[in-house]
Amino acid sequence: MVDLSDDVRGLIEDANLAHFVTLMKSGAPQVTPVWVDHDGTHVLINTAEGRQKALNLKREPRVALSVVDRNNSQRYVQVRGRVVQTIGGEEAYQHINKLSKKYSNNPNREYPRREGEQRLILKVRPDHVFYRPGARRD
Amino acid sequence: MVDLSDDVRGLIEDANLAHFVTLMKSGAPQVTPVWVDHDGTHVLINTAEGRQKALNLKREPRVALSVVDRNNSQRYVQVRGRVVQTIGGEEAYQHINKLSKKYSNNPNREYPRREGEQRLILKVRPDHVFYRPGARRD
Repeated sequence: MVDLSDDVRGLIEDANLAHFVTLMKSGAPQVTPVWVDHDGTHVLINTAEGRQKALNLKREPRVALSVVDRNNSQRYVQVRGRVVQTIGGEEAYQHINKLSKKYSNNPNREYPRREGEQRLILKVRPDHVFYRPGARRD
Repeated sequence: MVDLSDDVRGLIEDANLAHFVTLMKSGAPQVTPVWVDHDGTHVLINTAEGRQKALNLKREPRVALSVVDRNNSQRYVQVRGRVVQTIGGEEAYQHINKLSKKYSNNPNREYPRREGEQRLILKVRPDHVFYRPGARRD
């Protein structure tokens, strides 16, 4: 478990996308762009029951993610860790609404509820964090 | 092996970053933002000998990457595949120069040569491609 620095929290609090990796049954990686949040300690991702990410995580909790500053592509964070808790129900809906408002920059923009969709908060414990404030390393 | 559509090629040809995943020795994923290119058939990444990505690929060729349109975050591609060839030497330097010019939008901006650095082109064979032209799926 590694602390999230103020810089890393700031990068996540701004409306920057994360690229979130889970592992397929075969062990091969899969990566998708997602909204991202934190609770001070964990990185939070919101997905839905039945998505490939959610299916993969039932087998294998190890994940990784990277977040680049949308206004400065040389500033980014890479995280490796594992999903230590999955939260569904109303809390997950409130959370996706929070993200919808953040990424649309519109405090009234709730996330559309879809028939039968079960939202999930994925709580990622960061085990390794690399933060790059400046020059590119590709 | 899957063909790259014109849409996917276009997304890669524009100066959008890729988030590129390799697997650590433990099997856990690692993801980093990188410049990206294609040769019509393969996705091309440029790294350097000794980097974590390069070390990981000596053991495990399976990779994944995602690229989001920097001007439309709802447009993106996800690729799963494997590195089928690694090219070093002068060709890898010419290639990183091409990427430097593309991402700086400056036709004179060569990539700085660093003492002892060996650049590598990673040729990724796409085995699974998911292209999203529009609405978000997170």
